Amino acid sequence: MTKLATVLLSGGLDSATAAAWVLAEGWQAQALSIDYGQAHRREILSARAVAESLGMPQRTADARFFAGLAGHSALTDQAHHALPERRDAKAMGASDIPITYVPLRNSVFLTLAAAQLESQALQLIETQGTDPKDLRAGIVIAANALDYSGYPDCRPEFYEAAAKMLNLGAKLFTQYGVAIELLTPLISLSKADIVRLAGRLKAPLHLTWSCYAGGDRPCGVCDSCILRAKGFAEAGLADPAL
Amino acid sequence: MTKLATVLLSGGLDSATAAAWVLAEGWQAQALSIDYGQAHRREILSARAVAESLGMPQRTADARFFAGLAGHSALTDQAHHALPERRDAKAMGASDIPITYVPLRNSVFLTLAAAQLESQALQLIETQGTDPKDLRAGIVIAANALDYSGYPDCRPEFYEAAAKMLNLGAKLFTQYGVAIELLTPLISLSKADIVRLAGRLKAPLHLTWSCYAGGDRPCGVCDSCILRAKGFAEAGLADPAL
Repeated sequence: MTKLATVLLSGGLDSATAAAWVLAEGWQAQALSIDYGQAHRREILSARAVAESLGMPQRTADARFFAGLAGHSALTDQAHHALPERRDAKAMGASDIPITYVPLRNSVFLTLAAAQLESQALQLIETQGTDPKDLRAGIVIAANALDYSGYPDCRPEFYEAAAKMLNLGAKLFTQYGVAIELLTPLISLSKADIVRLAGRLKAPLHLTWSCYAGGDRPCGVCDSCILRAKGFAEAGLADPAL
Repeated sequence: MTKLATVLLSGGLDSATAAAWVLAEGWQAQALSIDYGQAHRREILSARAVAESLGMPQRTADARFFAGLAGHSALTDQAHHALPERRDAKAMGASDIPITYVPLRNSVFLTLAAAQLESQALQLIETQGTDPKDLRAGIVIAANALDYSGYPDCRPEFYEAAAKMLNLGAKLFTQYGVAIELLTPLISLSKADIVRLAGRLKAPLHLTWSCYAGGDRPCGVCDSCILRAKGFAEAGLADPAL
């Protein structure tokens, strides 16, 4: 059985943990990082370093046009949308989606990862003679529904719908019966659980970058920094990136 | 009521017709063309000319990385996958998906169009004060299930699943209740019906490009040329692009 996976690797704590997880599960995995013109470009460098540390092939897709296409967000247009500083992410209601939401980013990332994965799987089947029955195809995305419930595209029902769409549209499934599996190993974990899991898997957290700002050091005050610090504190561990 | 639409405009006969249709239906429409590194780059020029002729704002997204990401196709990698020459597209069985299938291309295009549309709709609501109740948001894609049944992502059930995914992932729907509508005006039309509709709508077919090859003149022998010629013949009209 060939288990072929594409991991969406942003360079943050969560995706680095998910990348270590998929290797531990025995998948033949590659990392896809997407340069979508995000303001915090530092994370692209982290993604490369994390993949290298894990011995995982990595590719960065140049999708910088996306920031112009979907510019209504604090992560793609800081000239018009200031990053929020919020001391307690839990204070957000479920229907209160923060300005750091990037229009349909996870939908776009999933479809790009699925296209890469399908292309490689079809290559195996159609030119290298792999039997579709001996092939599994997985996409790993480090979405998390618990600590950051503001984003609609981090909920399990979104991933169920996405898997259905991708497979209905894919030759890999409709012709060869190989379903693209969406793997969300972190979806129901708390940030502290993720930090503990990363520790067990020896994920290279010292190379990760979570801050929404893009300076030399994490800002310590954005939502993402606060959430990360809280996770390490609750897990009783020191953040090796600080 | 503001009816905001993004039309996926490839520059071919079908998308030019769909673009003329959405204007006739009273939508405020813009065109999105995607340069995905396709071999037949001539169509990007046609897309611009068609949009200009219709007086529709147009943007070309530079997604050339996509050809490298999803390279297992005759449309993105002609060095390894020759374009098929087939005299009768009808001879294909439903499970026989041609090598011109580009891995998950329509899924990727739809999510990009949806991201652009959502970004603009959120801009209207959140910065210009538009009441979500007075807003509709539509994506127009010229998919066609009838004449070209080999592509799994041209079937109505794919678009139903796609709408579900996009809306579950979108702030526009989950927070403001505005559903992204996927409009597929050509999905059950024959090529002859499309040619007739284009004639009624005065779509600028003389500016369109359908050929899978990218020369100065249509090759006349690829699937797409054959299908187009058949459509004009059945409609009893001359192709103004020849």
